[in-house]
Amino acid sequence: MKLAPWRSSLSRALHQHRSQPYSRYLQLATVDSQGLPANRTVVFRGFLADSNQLQFITDSRSNKIAHIEAKPWGEVCWYFNKSREQFRLFGQLTLVTANLKSTLQFARQEVWQKLSDSARLQFAWPHPGKERVENPEAFSPSKPSETEPLNNFCLLLLNPEKVDHLQLIGEPQNRYLYLRQRDQTWWTQSVNP
Amino acid sequence: MKLAPWRSSLSRALHQHRSQPYSRYLQLATVDSQGLPANRTVVFRGFLADSNQLQFITDSRSNKIAHIEAKPWGEVCWYFNKSREQFRLFGQLTLVTANLKSTLQFARQEVWQKLSDSARLQFAWPHPGKERVENPEAFSPSKPSETEPLNNFCLLLLNPEKVDHLQLIGEPQNRYLYLRQRDQTWWTQSVNP
Repeated sequence: MKLAPWRSSLSRALHQHRSQPYSRYLQLATVDSQGLPANRTVVFRGFLADSNQLQFITDSRSNKIAHIEAKPWGEVCWYFNKSREQFRLFGQLTLVTANLKSTLQFARQEVWQKLSDSARLQFAWPHPGKERVENPEAFSPSKPSETEPLNNFCLLLLNPEKVDHLQLIGEPQNRYLYLRQRDQTWWTQSVNP
Repeated sequence: MKLAPWRSSLSRALHQHRSQPYSRYLQLATVDSQGLPANRTVVFRGFLADSNQLQFITDSRSNKIAHIEAKPWGEVCWYFNKSREQFRLFGQLTLVTANLKSTLQFARQEVWQKLSDSARLQFAWPHPGKERVENPEAFSPSKPSETEPLNNFCLLLLNPEKVDHLQLIGEPQNRYLYLRQRDQTWWTQSVNP
């Protein structure tokens, strides 16, 4: 697998912001069952091995699952405040649920194992988005296994096919478009900011 | 006009982050003509007077214009890094172009007048997203009027009807849903994070 040409710029931005944990937070847009836009913050969990696919995690009880199952496309928007640059990555989404028969289960397990205890614990909390459970014990469940993901834990992959990189620092500014071709090579163009 | 109940939390977050100019940057999701999601960073330009509508600006030459004209709905996602909270605001979009016959032209003009010189100048740059114009003079146009907006300058309004406020700080965390009712009052519910 060849690294996509936008990977080096993204790695540089991540390195430059490594002291800010929230620089790994970005926004994922999807389309709901009525064809309306939805947008929420997700956490970048690294690239899937030997690929250019971005990894995120989600709960099978969250609303975005239905969106993604009906329309498996997303665009993430990632803004880096120190280097003042934006990456927009558009592509197909793959949801790796507990039931999916796929070698991707290894990646799902690996991402689970890398999570902090508190991040794993959230998957044992009450149904997200439903009326608040007032019993505080509901939010203090017993610690889940560190090796075997809970059933509602999903890995979410984004396979970019269009990347738009804007650098606000520069005279005037720089902006690059990257498009994945059918032969999996990337076409790059410098465009007006 | 009554302030929506989510306004005080949002004002508090903005105040808390007033030293970070980028805390006014947020991500706007729309749906393109093929029904696919699109996502980009926009800058919050305050609320439209006597309303709960958020103001943004855009260039009539940008891709999102066609998206919004075909499907005038958007969801913005706003993450505040110090207070560790997220606001998702979903609602109808109104595009105030130069040609729109509306009293909103006053707001369009007012937002233009409040822009910095460098922000105004960008509307005189070459067509955004097109192949890069290599002549550097193209990016050094003469200064546009400070009072009369350029024709391609648009005001964009988002009128929230659903707001999802998540606070990651808290034991465990807090999340509130706000839904605008037909009578324009807001229904509020505490939900599981």
